[in-house]
Amino acid sequence: MKALVATKFGDTDVLKLEEVEKPQLGADDLLIEVHATAMNPVDTKARKHGLGGLRVPPFVLGFDVSGVVRESGSNAAAHFKVGDEVFGLVSLFRNGANAEFVAADYRTMAKKPASVSHIQAAALPIALLTAWDGIYDRLQVKSGETVLIHAGGGGVGHIAIQLAKLKGAKVITTASSNASIELVKSLGADIVINHKQEDFAKKVLELTNNNGVEAIFDCVGGPVFAKSLDCIAPGGRIATIVEGSDANPSEKLFFKNASLHYVFIGAPLMYNLHPELQGKVLSEAAKLAEQGKLKAHVSQVLTLEQLAEAHKLQESGTVTGKIGIKVLNN
Amino acid sequence: MKALVATKFGDTDVLKLEEVEKPQLGADDLLIEVHATAMNPVDTKARKHGLGGLRVPPFVLGFDVSGVVRESGSNAAAHFKVGDEVFGLVSLFRNGANAEFVAADYRTMAKKPASVSHIQAAALPIALLTAWDGIYDRLQVKSGETVLIHAGGGGVGHIAIQLAKLKGAKVITTASSNASIELVKSLGADIVINHKQEDFAKKVLELTNNNGVEAIFDCVGGPVFAKSLDCIAPGGRIATIVEGSDANPSEKLFFKNASLHYVFIGAPLMYNLHPELQGKVLSEAAKLAEQGKLKAHVSQVLTLEQLAEAHKLQESGTVTGKIGIKVLNN
Repeated sequence: MKALVATKFGDTDVLKLEEVEKPQLGADDLLIEVHATAMNPVDTKARKHGLGGLRVPPFVLGFDVSGVVRESGSNAAAHFKVGDEVFGLVSLFRNGANAEFVAADYRTMAKKPASVSHIQAAALPIALLTAWDGIYDRLQVKSGETVLIHAGGGGVGHIAIQLAKLKGAKVITTASSNASIELVKSLGADIVINHKQEDFAKKVLELTNNNGVEAIFDCVGGPVFAKSLDCIAPGGRIATIVEGSDANPSEKLFFKNASLHYVFIGAPLMYNLHPELQGKVLSEAAKLAEQGKLKAHVSQVLTLEQLAEAHKLQESGTVTGKIGIKVLNN
Repeated sequence: MKALVATKFGDTDVLKLEEVEKPQLGADDLLIEVHATAMNPVDTKARKHGLGGLRVPPFVLGFDVSGVVRESGSNAAAHFKVGDEVFGLVSLFRNGANAEFVAADYRTMAKKPASVSHIQAAALPIALLTAWDGIYDRLQVKSGETVLIHAGGGGVGHIAIQLAKLKGAKVITTASSNASIELVKSLGADIVINHKQEDFAKKVLELTNNNGVEAIFDCVGGPVFAKSLDCIAPGGRIATIVEGSDANPSEKLFFKNASLHYVFIGAPLMYNLHPELQGKVLSEAAKLAEQGKLKAHVSQVLTLEQLAEAHKLQESGTVTGKIGIKVLNN
């Protein structure tokens, strides 16, 4: 089969279209004919330096998938049949969906609603699972609470806004480009802070009578994580989806009696921690998508052959919503 | 009234027995005749350097109290009557119970069971509220889970063991003195690691098939907090009751998809964050104490006049359970 292989660590020129073996199936696996995948920051990080040493080239990236079941392992067959349209998150630790076929654990997949396109469905899994874990399972955002979502126009952020609004929370979000500001407003964000024009922490304190917000969902990390420590309310909760920050949270968070959640969506498959919950969450998301209550904003669609360009776009940090990757031309 | 006043920051010689004004009552306050108080690490920290600059001498320490209501503010009168025996946590930001009388917000107090002595009741509030927040509200320890409790023979630790066992969890705890080891075993700890004889993180990994424990309750901080990051399971939760550690948790916790809770029991009164919950938790604890399911281990009882000695003992780090302080000689 054809696959876009990351042949070694490096710039986008390490990505080569090659002929490779179809994936081997385990008992829990589905062989999925890939119709679409999507770009995520994890693709460019893995291409540049593996994932904390956990991946070594050559490997195939593309962890979101939407496609059609073509074969199934012995355990998987009772749950999905050949011909089913499915979408989901492929393990970060196996070859991905930048290829004609991908193998994925059936427990992490869900049926794609007929009314949702493959491009739309493939744009959901990583962003949705990350936002769901952050906003629902970890921060447990409640109706009436205020949550600050960083980079609300980004891949994870724009899904997080929708989940927080579905729960009845008030959403403050940061955005700077016109396209992102327009997107977050269309998704119901209550207050948009243009972080290039003003200091978000000062603005949040001003908006909250110096108290800070009950919950912060950080999709940026680094200095944005560090500054977030200054505008969390006493008793508040922060979730970050970005590894690494020089800021030691102890000094700022201890006397606030606050909580800090690290959200790494690769963990359930890495450690075999209830991978079936991924499939369940995606099934719930599929229902919301079918009802028109949840939608990935795919701002541009490229083909597998244009993957290097897609990586460059993703790394530019200017993408609104998601970049979809069309694989099967049908 | 008589009070032991911390006249300035310093060693125990700054503690002086003085004649001071009785506390002024606000509408939510009870005036409590102090029968007993107890030592906590927060007393010695406040004596040495305030609490992160939040307290300036002269002040009266002693934040746990058990005693008898002698007057009540206008809002408090509907809830407690003169003559009621009460116990609770006095605000860390007001004068404490190292005195004949103390004022306390009625919402943070509970009725003392008749079968529990003042010394016993005064040994509970800070330790119980801290352990309850850590084990129940933040870590949400469940039946069948394994929790590692550091310093299980200490003031907070020995209450945490009891709460975790009441929930049906498996308890691994660290202790080193004979008295502490005996105490934690009597409270039902399943496994005791003598941290002076072996590396607790290695031992925990060995005991858990290299997986680590689902929950850690850290009552020690510093290097113990840092090393705890090495033996938490993927998806695990850590709660620490000690401010400040040089260890930045991000690197160890991010890829484990873990959560970190800072537990500072002064926060509800400092920020007026549901102080009524303190009274409710203490009322529940009072029921457990009355039923014989929960008991503070008071290893020694000193008098108010012996407070300097009590501070020295507390600072020695060798106390098993709690030091009770008898105030009213009746």
